[in-house]
Amino acid sequence: MTDLGIAMERMEQLKESIDIGYLCICAAFVLLMQVGFAFLEGGCLRYKDMQSIMLKIFMNTCVTIIIWWLVGYGIAFGSDSKEFVGSSVYVGFDMKNSKHLAEFAFQTAVASAATSIVSGGAAGRMTYIGYFILSVVFSSVIYPFCAHWGFGNGWLMKLGYHDYAGSGTIHASAGMGALMTTMLLKPRNQRFNPKYAEHFEPNNPIYITLACLSLWVCWCFFNGGSSLGIANGASVFMSRAIMNTFIAGASGALTVFFIYYLMNIDQGNRYSLVMICNGNLAGLVAITGPCDNVDAWAAFVIGILGGMMMVFANRVLFNLQIDDPVDAISIHFACGMLGANLVSWFDMDTGIVYGKGGYQFAVQMLGSFIYIGWSAIIHLITLLFIEKIGFLRVTLEEEYEGLDPATMGCCAYEMVEQQQ
Amino acid sequence: MTDLGIAMERMEQLKESIDIGYLCICAAFVLLMQVGFAFLEGGCLRYKDMQSIMLKIFMNTCVTIIIWWLVGYGIAFGSDSKEFVGSSVYVGFDMKNSKHLAEFAFQTAVASAATSIVSGGAAGRMTYIGYFILSVVFSSVIYPFCAHWGFGNGWLMKLGYHDYAGSGTIHASAGMGALMTTMLLKPRNQRFNPKYAEHFEPNNPIYITLACLSLWVCWCFFNGGSSLGIANGASVFMSRAIMNTFIAGASGALTVFFIYYLMNIDQGNRYSLVMICNGNLAGLVAITGPCDNVDAWAAFVIGILGGMMMVFANRVLFNLQIDDPVDAISIHFACGMLGANLVSWFDMDTGIVYGKGGYQFAVQMLGSFIYIGWSAIIHLITLLFIEKIGFLRVTLEEEYEGLDPATMGCCAYEMVEQQQ
Amino acid sequence: MTDLGIAMERMEQLKESIDIGYLCICAAFVLLMQVGFAFLEGGCLRYKDMQSIMLKIFMNTCVTIIIWWLVGYGIAFGSDSKEFVGSSVYVGFDMKNSKHLAEFAFQTAVASAATSIVSGGAAGRMTYIGYFILSVVFSSVIYPFCAHWGFGNGWLMKLGYHDYAGSGTIHASAGMGALMTTMLLKPRNQRFNPKYAEHFEPNNPIYITLACLSLWVCWCFFNGGSSLGIANGASVFMSRAIMNTFIAGASGALTVFFIYYLMNIDQGNRYSLVMICNGNLAGLVAITGPCDNVDAWAAFVIGILGGMMMVFANRVLFNLQIDDPVDAISIHFACGMLGANLVSWFDMDTGIVYGKGGYQFAVQMLGSFIYIGWSAIIHLITLLFIEKIGFLRVTLEEEYEGLDPATMGCCAYEMVEQQQ
Repeated sequence: MTDLGIAMERMEQLKESIDIGYLCICAAFVLLMQVGFAFLEGGCLRYKDMQSIMLKIFMNTCVTIIIWWLVGYGIAFGSDSKEFVGSSVYVGFDMKNSKHLAEFAFQTAVASAATSIVSGGAAGRMTYIGYFILSVVFSSVIYPFCAHWGFGNGWLMKLGYHDYAGSGTIHASAGMGALMTTMLLKPRNQRFNPKYAEHFEPNNPIYITLACLSLWVCWCFFNGGSSLGIANGASVFMSRAIMNTFIAGASGALTVFFIYYLMNIDQGNRYSLVMICNGNLAGLVAITGPCDNVDAWAAFVIGILGGMMMVFANRVLFNLQIDDPVDAISIHFACGMLGANLVSWFDMDTGIVYGKGGYQFAVQMLGSFIYIGWSAIIHLITLLFIEKIGFLRVTLEEEYEGLDPATMGCCAYEMVEQQQ
Repeated sequence: MTDLGIAMERMEQLKESIDIGYLCICAAFVLLMQVGFAFLEGGCLRYKDMQSIMLKIFMNTCVTIIIWWLVGYGIAFGSDSKEFVGSSVYVGFDMKNSKHLAEFAFQTAVASAATSIVSGGAAGRMTYIGYFILSVVFSSVIYPFCAHWGFGNGWLMKLGYHDYAGSGTIHASAGMGALMTTMLLKPRNQRFNPKYAEHFEPNNPIYITLACLSLWVCWCFFNGGSSLGIANGASVFMSRAIMNTFIAGASGALTVFFIYYLMNIDQGNRYSLVMICNGNLAGLVAITGPCDNVDAWAAFVIGILGGMMMVFANRVLFNLQIDDPVDAISIHFACGMLGANLVSWFDMDTGIVYGKGGYQFAVQMLGSFIYIGWSAIIHLITLLFIEKIGFLRVTLEEEYEGLDPATMGCCAYEMVEQQQ
Repeated sequence: MTDLGIAMERMEQLKESIDIGYLCICAAFVLLMQVGFAFLEGGCLRYKDMQSIMLKIFMNTCVTIIIWWLVGYGIAFGSDSKEFVGSSVYVGFDMKNSKHLAEFAFQTAVASAATSIVSGGAAGRMTYIGYFILSVVFSSVIYPFCAHWGFGNGWLMKLGYHDYAGSGTIHASAGMGALMTTMLLKPRNQRFNPKYAEHFEPNNPIYITLACLSLWVCWCFFNGGSSLGIANGASVFMSRAIMNTFIAGASGALTVFFIYYLMNIDQGNRYSLVMICNGNLAGLVAITGPCDNVDAWAAFVIGILGGMMMVFANRVLFNLQIDDPVDAISIHFACGMLGANLVSWFDMDTGIVYGKGGYQFAVQMLGSFIYIGWSAIIHLITLLFIEKIGFLRVTLEEEYEGLDPATMGCCAYEMVEQQQ
């Protein structure tokens, strides 16, 4: 009790306890992002497909938790991790230590968020069983390897690839999953028929607003939580991450607000709640990778670039007639790639604008392309398999009727009928 | 300043501050569960009863806070607590110490959640004044004694009853309250007339999804917060509680998803957003008691058992023509009883599957039956009194018209009219 | 390592880390209040104006973040702060230290909440560009000076003005902004024509409930976070603030519930979900200033007074035909003034009820009137400028059609059409 060594040891224990408490709080907030994804995607689709996408998101959350406990966490963060694959923490059997338990909760919540990004490509026409299979593969193979390479002391990390909370590791790879899924599914029926354009407008901008503002808050813990603690100097990265998350989200939203305002100068609808939401998300995705080590002015610029990239990608996809029902590809894929590569420009230690950056530029480029390549290949194989066994796409009748009435027997909220 | 004793003392103060901060955060999250209950129950009822249940839940939250400050907290956690009843902290007069303030906030939020569970039985036909009286009795008598016996160093706790965050102490006792309430109120008019079955379908599965995903997140703090701190080794229980809350929620949801899928094999509606939500909640209720000291695989199994129990109880209640408008009884009562008793099977120190458990089995059984017996008796007396004074059930006309138009003059969201 | 000095230094570092972590968590929660404001105001307006107010709130959040980074934070909390204006932290350039980053995040989120309060006065008829200008002025001039004087070691603080989380500094000054805005805009068309009274009823009480319960939770961090940390004894203020936030919110809600119940004794609509929500908010605004240093019984009384004040102010405004679309003036202005002045009655150290208070009474009175005077003058100048350049009010046609269809081309959620 009166020995200094004991005092120091207790302080170390206290530090660990604090880090655990912090991680658990972040884990819960990252789990809360599923509310955001459910309402974002539900609000973007047709009214009669809302429940179907929410069910998919709920399902993929549960699947990811179970799979990460079974194998995913072991592959990604197994304690005697190797360069290409981790090991030793399968089925949670040796997670006796509480730091490990808290990290499991946080990383599993992050993995669930990644899985939900893919659901954007499956929206409005994929079967539940097909999507279930895809979620299992994504959370047991595709994402755990990404996480191991970039976060879990794998080969990319050792090369110096820096992607703090995962613009590339998470958003670009999951966004590529959404792209592959939507391409193999093909567009929703009549999607690019101008006569029916109105049918594919977001059905509920209010839900999108709820989603987006909630996601912004949760993103603070998604980015801030990647410090994995606050003791031992980690608090500087955490607080900078959160400040930058505020700023880039704001500049992204305002950028898209003004772009839309100027683009629609002669029309009645110069304002759009959905576009300010998408701009916000674009800024958030772009800052995810560099958030820990860029200055506030850089976060401001990154948000603007994210917003511009989102608008640009959205146009390109539309012109290519690639159906991106919930803008998952233009937000997560395009801005994720952007964010992963902006690290090499704006990082305060290794960035090009600070006169450094040749090597960092190369390694960020390498990393981000590895991620999308890996994700594209495994997604392709999985989707072809799902197509083979006949679980890729719902029937045209079901799609026409709407997935909710066709598969659940009812629409989401039918006030009119119930009033009688 | 240079004395080691001072340093150690400061560290103890710091630990206390950390625990206080942690408890306050948990308190706020548990208060947020009221959003969950409001939208869960609002979504489950008829459209024209939504506001009435939300008003009841808002009211019981406020009532519980005031009552707990006046007497509830004193009975449950009074500092010179006796075996059957605590004392000495009435009307908060001696809550000068900040640990006490934080614990008050947390325990009061927990008590509010318990009160909201009872509202499920009152949904759609109880008068506001009757429900107000019931809330006062529940939060001043029924639950404070439950909490004292099981959490506040009372006689059950001294016997060795272990129910970490309260599967029995909270969910089973409050669920029994919902059961007594619904039985004395009798079913809603035409509830079991197959012709009108459709009228009693949940009116808004989207709100139920919002509620359920939010509750899952808050549950992490409900279960995790029961460590009452993170310093001094408590962080291991906290992090394990949160991990198990993730896993059991996921396995519960997937279990019910597949049960429903298989049960409706020849029908158009093989999928149900509401059922996956209910399964999730069932898993969460079942893990609430054992969450601190079971392994992850046990949490997985407990979630499955919770999901199965919910489906089973739901069927039984329907066949007995007991009207359970928001599934409060099949979720909180049935899975609460299950969870309280599964402690004696899966607890890593005292569980039957680890070769221990005779005594623990008996004491868990005793505790859970004491809770439901106590709750049933006081609820019965209170409800008979409420019936006597004429405040039990609304009139048939009010029920037919819908509680919202009848008592508030308007329905929840009337877009059609307002558009003109 | 074995030196006591090093141990003490590390403990100080740990304390700082803890405070940073705590502040960042509070910052995120205060940002979440924007969900609350968006749904509160959206629910209060006509259905066809919902998106427009949500867009305004989203926009002012982003504007405030950027402006606070550019100048606001420097004016309010600049490190070599002077009595009337701070300085030295412009454009975040010298925010290298992590405590500063975390405080920036928290204070910026608080400033965003303040800006959103003003939007209440602009609801339903102000142009987006006009509101954009107003937000810039509010967050760069009006509020930063208020914050500097009362929170940032400015002249009011030095005089002894005590307003813990800002009943006067934030709510009264922003509420005065809403009052000036609504008065210069003039009432919405036909607002006080009894024939159309129904058109101006809140369109969605469910959203108001969602908002209010969420705001209550976030308010715990708004009030609790004003301790700016938990180490070094700050936890006592934090825990007391949160406990009092619980109690005053509850007593405010119940007060208004019963007032409304008694006032409508002969009518069909004796119950109102909206009124219990407003009462809750009134209690919360009133406790914001005194929350750190009043006893629980005083919080109970303050909540009751807040509820009564809100009902009274609401009546007065209606009789004066001042259009307060979202009750921002009767809640934030009236109860904010009340809360700032109740400090001098109930503060445990300086309150009149404890036999102290002459000086404190004078200084609270001075401070609160300075705030509303300052806010009124700058708002007036700004609004007259906006009127001059023609961006004050939308056209009568746009208002009649509804801001959503007129400016965005669609209403918020049009189920009926999309079902076909």
